[in-house]
Amino acid sequence: MAQPSAPSARTRLVREADRAVYDRDAAYRILDEGFICHVGFVVDGQPFVIPTGYGRVGDNLYIHGSAASRMLRRVDEGLAVCVTVTLLDGLVLARSIFNHSMNYRSVVILGTARAVNDPTEKLEALRLLSEHILPGRWVESRLPNEKELKATLVMRLPIEEFSAKVRQGPPVDDEEDYAFSTWAGVIPLEMVAGNPINDPRLNLGCAVPTYVEKYSRKR
Amino acid sequence: MAQPSAPSARTRLVREADRAVYDRDAAYRILDEGFICHVGFVVDGQPFVIPTGYGRVGDNLYIHGSAASRMLRRVDEGLAVCVTVTLLDGLVLARSIFNHSMNYRSVVILGTARAVNDPTEKLEALRLLSEHILPGRWVESRLPNEKELKATLVMRLPIEEFSAKVRQGPPVDDEEDYAFSTWAGVIPLEMVAGNPINDPRLNLGCAVPTYVEKYSRKR
Repeated sequence: MAQPSAPSARTRLVREADRAVYDRDAAYRILDEGFICHVGFVVDGQPFVIPTGYGRVGDNLYIHGSAASRMLRRVDEGLAVCVTVTLLDGLVLARSIFNHSMNYRSVVILGTARAVNDPTEKLEALRLLSEHILPGRWVESRLPNEKELKATLVMRLPIEEFSAKVRQGPPVDDEEDYAFSTWAGVIPLEMVAGNPINDPRLNLGCAVPTYVEKYSRKR
Repeated sequence: MAQPSAPSARTRLVREADRAVYDRDAAYRILDEGFICHVGFVVDGQPFVIPTGYGRVGDNLYIHGSAASRMLRRVDEGLAVCVTVTLLDGLVLARSIFNHSMNYRSVVILGTARAVNDPTEKLEALRLLSEHILPGRWVESRLPNEKELKATLVMRLPIEEFSAKVRQGPPVDDEEDYAFSTWAGVIPLEMVAGNPINDPRLNLGCAVPTYVEKYSRKR
């Protein structure tokens, strides 16, 4: 697949262009650390934005569709979407209100999402999605039967037209504000996994697996 | 303001209606814990989804606009948006792949966002937005001057047409799957604040304030 070396007119960052990242590898690192996206689509001129899980596999995003039926009624013929993934890394406290910011990494993908309908391809797409979100889980689970597979919706979105944006590091204040006597710096924010909670109906002798115990999005 | 007791046709949940929350107080608790939203809007038929900060004040959402210029070119005359706030609480591991889920709380608001242009109202909107994200910070900062105020964009979105969705608790498996011998339960996920990082150019003697040291989104 062609590797775009320049953004399209639609994905070129208009503001804060210094935060732009058009490099495919950098965008993929962001997509691989995240697993929740916000899917935007249009129905009768009205935008909708729905959160859902996804997995990246090569140059495609597989998007879990069960939570967004308005979207999915239209997805067989191809649906124009914007899929955005945002990782929040911290609050940036400057001396001036104006220079307050956030540290974050985000990717915006524009394109046409299509439902994956072939059963074999759909099962494989679900496996890849599952492995993206929780590696190791698929083989330990009771796999989907035919009825469940039909009731599940997976979309594929080619990652062709995209941009990423990254802000990191300390605040940047106007030179004359550095004398202003207030604390400045960063409050780091991170999504962390807590101790696994056993299902109340867990069978005796089922130990917490390593992929659960050590769950982390760090890549 | 009227308190809608029923969802509109556009915000009624079509799937998983048991997870629907149309109660305004419940939606506000979610909006108050979060501070990042995904704003969806349409340009030439193409949806865009942009992450940005927000603050809730009464029955309005104030949305920081600086990161989304495509949106803001159109916002003086009123822009049709969908604003979605998602709080992720955990991965839900069932015995069957099909019943895997996530614990989350989300709010979707449809409406028309308008730029706040009056300087006095804009300054107050910024203060409220700042207080939502980091209470206590505003009075310790160098406040915006006229030029900065002009360069900042704030939108107001009335919270009128909205819905919320909540999934919590353990996995729910098909009855016959409870005998399937795999670990099941929840991996809790939480956005936590780490130790504050001093700005390398911090003035000597500036101690970390309490609102930074104790930062938490728990409400």
